[in-house]
Amino acid sequence: MKILILGGDGYLGWPTAMYLSTKGHDVAVMDNLAKRRWELELNVEPLIPIRTLQDRVAAWKELTGRNIALFIGDLRNYETVRNLFTAFRPDAVIHYGEQPSAPYSMIDHNRCVFTQTNNVVGNLHVLWAMREYAPACHLVKLGTMGEYGTPNIDIEEGFLEIEHNGRKDVLPFPKLPGSFYHLSKVHDSHNIHFACRVWNLRATDLNQGVVYGIETDETRIDPRLATSFHYDEVFGTALNRFCVQAISGVPLTVYGKGGQTRGFLNIRDTIRCVEIAVLNPPKPGEFRVFNQFTEQFNIMELALLVQKVSAKLGLTVKIEHLENPRVEMEQHYYKAVAQKLLALGLEPHRLSDVLLDGMLERAHSERIKMEIIMPKVQWRPQAAASEPVAQAAVTA
Amino acid sequence: MKILILGGDGYLGWPTAMYLSTKGHDVAVMDNLAKRRWELELNVEPLIPIRTLQDRVAAWKELTGRNIALFIGDLRNYETVRNLFTAFRPDAVIHYGEQPSAPYSMIDHNRCVFTQTNNVVGNLHVLWAMREYAPACHLVKLGTMGEYGTPNIDIEEGFLEIEHNGRKDVLPFPKLPGSFYHLSKVHDSHNIHFACRVWNLRATDLNQGVVYGIETDETRIDPRLATSFHYDEVFGTALNRFCVQAISGVPLTVYGKGGQTRGFLNIRDTIRCVEIAVLNPPKPGEFRVFNQFTEQFNIMELALLVQKVSAKLGLTVKIEHLENPRVEMEQHYYKAVAQKLLALGLEPHRLSDVLLDGMLERAHSERIKMEIIMPKVQWRPQAAASEPVAQAAVTA
Repeated sequence: MKILILGGDGYLGWPTAMYLSTKGHDVAVMDNLAKRRWELELNVEPLIPIRTLQDRVAAWKELTGRNIALFIGDLRNYETVRNLFTAFRPDAVIHYGEQPSAPYSMIDHNRCVFTQTNNVVGNLHVLWAMREYAPACHLVKLGTMGEYGTPNIDIEEGFLEIEHNGRKDVLPFPKLPGSFYHLSKVHDSHNIHFACRVWNLRATDLNQGVVYGIETDETRIDPRLATSFHYDEVFGTALNRFCVQAISGVPLTVYGKGGQTRGFLNIRDTIRCVEIAVLNPPKPGEFRVFNQFTEQFNIMELALLVQKVSAKLGLTVKIEHLENPRVEMEQHYYKAVAQKLLALGLEPHRLSDVLLDGMLERAHSERIKMEIIMPKVQWRPQAAASEPVAQAAVTA
Repeated sequence: MKILILGGDGYLGWPTAMYLSTKGHDVAVMDNLAKRRWELELNVEPLIPIRTLQDRVAAWKELTGRNIALFIGDLRNYETVRNLFTAFRPDAVIHYGEQPSAPYSMIDHNRCVFTQTNNVVGNLHVLWAMREYAPACHLVKLGTMGEYGTPNIDIEEGFLEIEHNGRKDVLPFPKLPGSFYHLSKVHDSHNIHFACRVWNLRATDLNQGVVYGIETDETRIDPRLATSFHYDEVFGTALNRFCVQAISGVPLTVYGKGGQTRGFLNIRDTIRCVEIAVLNPPKPGEFRVFNQFTEQFNIMELALLVQKVSAKLGLTVKIEHLENPRVEMEQHYYKAVAQKLLALGLEPHRLSDVLLDGMLERAHSERIKMEIIMPKVQWRPQAAASEPVAQAAVTA
């Protein structure tokens, strides 16, 4: 199958490309390398040094004999997207190519507006290019479980049957996203749903939980194939950050009481979920939503788990509660359905001690920068105007 | 009260400014005059010649002695918005300043992306400016009933109590918008709701029905104070267009069977609704949604009404069914609640024969351009690629 991966330089994009290439698909990646610019802005870097995308594609070819077609370009430029679609003619597009950080979108008005325009415009261009050049193509779009927020009812997979005043309908599940980044994904979902209804396109929206992990079968082949692993406050996620903190001998930073419950999944499962979606396309006109996570935890449970595993490795790890920089409920009901991918064959990796061991070992690095872990980006306006917050984040 | 009206050059913005000025408020208007550029692009013009915004503000001063402060600027420029807020320090902002046409947003990828970025970015800038310079200010935002689509259940005012698997929550009403324009308003609503939750801002989202009518007490004072009345396929709305067709002796163009039911309201009621919202602000942190219309009709009912009133005036009017250029249900359940504005004192104008008479009289004009009435913008991809559609619309 001809598979185009947008955001192919990213944490998930690159391992996905290698995995699907191994499976014999004809894979192309596109990226504008923006994440590397944002890292420079914020003075953060991945834990493990990673090669340029060009070098990784070359190394992949050298090591496996397999070709991954490479395009450098920006989805905000419609000419670029149009040329990409006419040059590669994909059967499926896996769209990871967005600004992926909630804190980044909350730094200041500039980054808020950038996040929403970058993500929404890029996605609209993909939809228009599909409409004009690849109407049978299947869009597999990375969304987030964060689109739903934490409602007091079970979270269904994208749609909900509602009975109201004696009448019924199946309608999009209401959204309560928690940052301008999460909002951008909600906007995308609405736009894609519309394109399916009106243009008869087909799409799968993967509302993904928090991903953890650093290795896949393909990244293990050679150090040059490593993927980027972030542990900083802006691009890192809770569990990845905790592992780095444990290894560094600093307390795990739990925001507030740590009662925030979310869905989580291993990076290997992300890749498998995407493959499952690609291999089982919806029919034309269908907008399908999968909730993509394998286990639910609250943040305190994760911290305690890291503490326990660290103890086995002889590390004494403390847990520290910080004032929550985000606006979110710390105690809340959370039960989300994630059945559709299981029904299609997903066999989840569980967050076992074994997997965490691996992460703790890989996190043992001289490159850890302590000063980029503590949260500086605040959701609420601070006493001063927002500029100091922005500067604090930028000069961290 | 210091009231800032964004989009003060528009069909609704200008009459709102005059009305609130008459009521003794300190009114400022801002506009980037973009609508006049879009009219040039599409070679359409308002039925009645209207003066520039600058001339109308000057005429208002001359005729009434009242000042309306005038700002020319673009909401997409944050410096401009920031300067506006620090110069005027509004107590309330009435935000009409968006690209308002569904067909315009469907012409091609350029106008789709323009509509979403223009509307979403302008609105985000208003939110950020409120956060930084006017946190107690009340945002009164013009949304649209079209955000809801036509669900098979009653449409509530913004929120819905949902019972699911034995648990309950009150959540945002699910949205099924019917064009990229309507989607932009859905995106705005989500962004505003978030800003209220996280920044403690206060806002009223006015999900407005289709507005008809051409005159208010203030536009009647002098011809120089007229507001723009569009009857073309892009900026005109069904009832306004039917009146112009009746007067011109051409058939009324009903899309499909005409069973599409929507909420409607008179232009005078729009202005009164906005006043009611401004005078009754929500509390800090509250995101309030009002459904703003006074009567429900389906399109065929409107056509028959225009036919009947025209007959009284001695005009024989035919009704023609065109293939629907939009993708929408032509037979559907539609019952929307609109109680909150009534509870706060709205006394609706009904679509009586009298009001229609007035519209038919004013529509009697030598300026009617027949060639801009028939629909050319198609929601669905046509046999050829989209470019011809775009060109057809532009060169109409």
